[in-house]
Amino acid sequence: MRPLAVSMGDPAGVGLEIAVRAWTQRTAATAPFFLIADAAAVQRAGACAGLALGVHAIDAPQRATAVFATALPVLHTPLAQQEIPGAPTPANAAAIIGAIERGVATIRAGEAAALVTLPIAKATLYAAGFRHPGHTEFVAELCADMPDAGPRGPVMMLATSGLRVALATIHAPLAEVSALLTRARVEQTARVVLHALRADFGLATPRLVLAALNPHAGEGGALGREEIEIINPVAALLRAEGFSITDARPADTLFHADARASYDAVLAMYHDQGLIPIKALDFWGATNLTLGLPIVRTSPDHGTGFDIAGKGIAHIGSFVAALQMAADIAQRRAA
Amino acid sequence: MRPLAVSMGDPAGVGLEIAVRAWTQRTAATAPFFLIADAAAVQRAGACAGLALGVHAIDAPQRATAVFATALPVLHTPLAQQEIPGAPTPANAAAIIGAIERGVATIRAGEAAALVTLPIAKATLYAAGFRHPGHTEFVAELCADMPDAGPRGPVMMLATSGLRVALATIHAPLAEVSALLTRARVEQTARVVLHALRADFGLATPRLVLAALNPHAGEGGALGREEIEIINPVAALLRAEGFSITDARPADTLFHADARASYDAVLAMYHDQGLIPIKALDFWGATNLTLGLPIVRTSPDHGTGFDIAGKGIAHIGSFVAALQMAADIAQRRAA
Repeated sequence: MRPLAVSMGDPAGVGLEIAVRAWTQRTAATAPFFLIADAAAVQRAGACAGLALGVHAIDAPQRATAVFATALPVLHTPLAQQEIPGAPTPANAAAIIGAIERGVATIRAGEAAALVTLPIAKATLYAAGFRHPGHTEFVAELCADMPDAGPRGPVMMLATSGLRVALATIHAPLAEVSALLTRARVEQTARVVLHALRADFGLATPRLVLAALNPHAGEGGALGREEIEIINPVAALLRAEGFSITDARPADTLFHADARASYDAVLAMYHDQGLIPIKALDFWGATNLTLGLPIVRTSPDHGTGFDIAGKGIAHIGSFVAALQMAADIAQRRAA
Repeated sequence: MRPLAVSMGDPAGVGLEIAVRAWTQRTAATAPFFLIADAAAVQRAGACAGLALGVHAIDAPQRATAVFATALPVLHTPLAQQEIPGAPTPANAAAIIGAIERGVATIRAGEAAALVTLPIAKATLYAAGFRHPGHTEFVAELCADMPDAGPRGPVMMLATSGLRVALATIHAPLAEVSALLTRARVEQTARVVLHALRADFGLATPRLVLAALNPHAGEGGALGREEIEIINPVAALLRAEGFSITDARPADTLFHADARASYDAVLAMYHDQGLIPIKALDFWGATNLTLGLPIVRTSPDHGTGFDIAGKGIAHIGSFVAALQMAADIAQRRAA
């Protein structure tokens, strides 16, 4: 298999040290990856973490797999300013963004199997002119012109052992969520999730649960009508096509163990509705993946961790899970 | 101590069988309680659950404590129609509502220490003319004229081992939450919670965390301004008075074990934001309590369970925890 491309994220955060430690703790099952980062910054991240690290600058992704067993392959992307752990600077925004662009480019060129992005801090990028609501939307734009047979996203999904949650809206003020929730959006998002559960997760007949927007699923309209007017009609439409999909169900009763065993994914209507249960249940190990793209993209489900950067204490579980999921999905798509 | 009053809830639900089983599984530490219910319905609930049960109709709450060791004391409140498990009827709405009213009345008369309410189905009550958004608001109205030194609620709190979450708004459509969140409401709710943490939970210097309304706590205003304009100013005001209270924090990072260890309660801004993590972490054992009332009122944190009523399979943990919490708080207030 081709190697995975890993974009540096904000070099003032925990991303590079996590990648370095994931490499030092690699096993025979770890999918080979290369970092798109400043080679010296990677070396410093290793030193910070107290690790004896071989960093091997490569000039082409193809060399990564051969190098991976003995050194961490780095596709060198220089920073404008040496990173200071915990102190992000817009001076490095161009390099951070450039690493994401280069990651997508290596996949488009057939040189990498999938993209795993390390965390960025949007405030830093905004200060340098970045205008996308997040990683998810930016990556989607970078491959917008690529053909793809399936229904198109981007749709954000968070996944951990026994729970997958996709989002119908992502980075929106809560007061705007209701207006954003059109039938067209809920339908398209549900189609993307159902397709991904089949194509990317190998589930022949996936079971999707729709979360209600309102408390008690609107209680028959007394606490809101989006369930009646928007969510349930979409569910009926898709059930008529043969999909296993529920009407809107009260979101607070969807996430205990018995409930989780009854479905393959939940479509949450807004950011915190989906991320609260995922992070309450598995703060350190959940994976973020983007559905409905022509490329495979995952990321750890945590931020830059500026407050703990450079201390060597960041958990690597979420990044390791993101690598594994990227490799699994890429293999399934290639099969 | 005076006994606890337990209102019947919907007799077609799991409430009575839970109460019966809680009595049969009582220990020396169980606070004596009496049911405000139809005595024959209680007997039938016991039979359904396969339990040999002594039901003892009492004519006054004072007799409950003496009876409790040998029989389940019931303050008889007749149903209009014999209950059918799983099939609620508005015909019994008056009795259901009457039991709640009688429960509050026994406390006002000094005959009971606290009220524990079994689950009601609002649709059934609405069909009979009930006009309150929920139990919480109804109980608050029933004791609205009682004097109380502390800041006034009602504020709904959900509690389980290691996590307490109070709600700034409760039964509102999600689209209306932002408009309901005024500084006055957030401040009053926070004051009620802080007071209750001291007076009802015995915490000398309680630590309260405010959940953000918007994803990423609004990301400096880019994803909503309620944090900047409403929530954080309230936090600053209360900190200036010496309270330990945080600015609005991203709700998705508040509920993992490490985070939970860092505070005594979270003030969530809306229903599902608070109930999703509580129920994801402890679906069967969480307790609902109403803060800021002159009386103590708790309830199990689940609904009527019509789909499993009469089968003897409902979990009793949440009700048992509600009894314990009611007794603990009543004792602390009396001390």
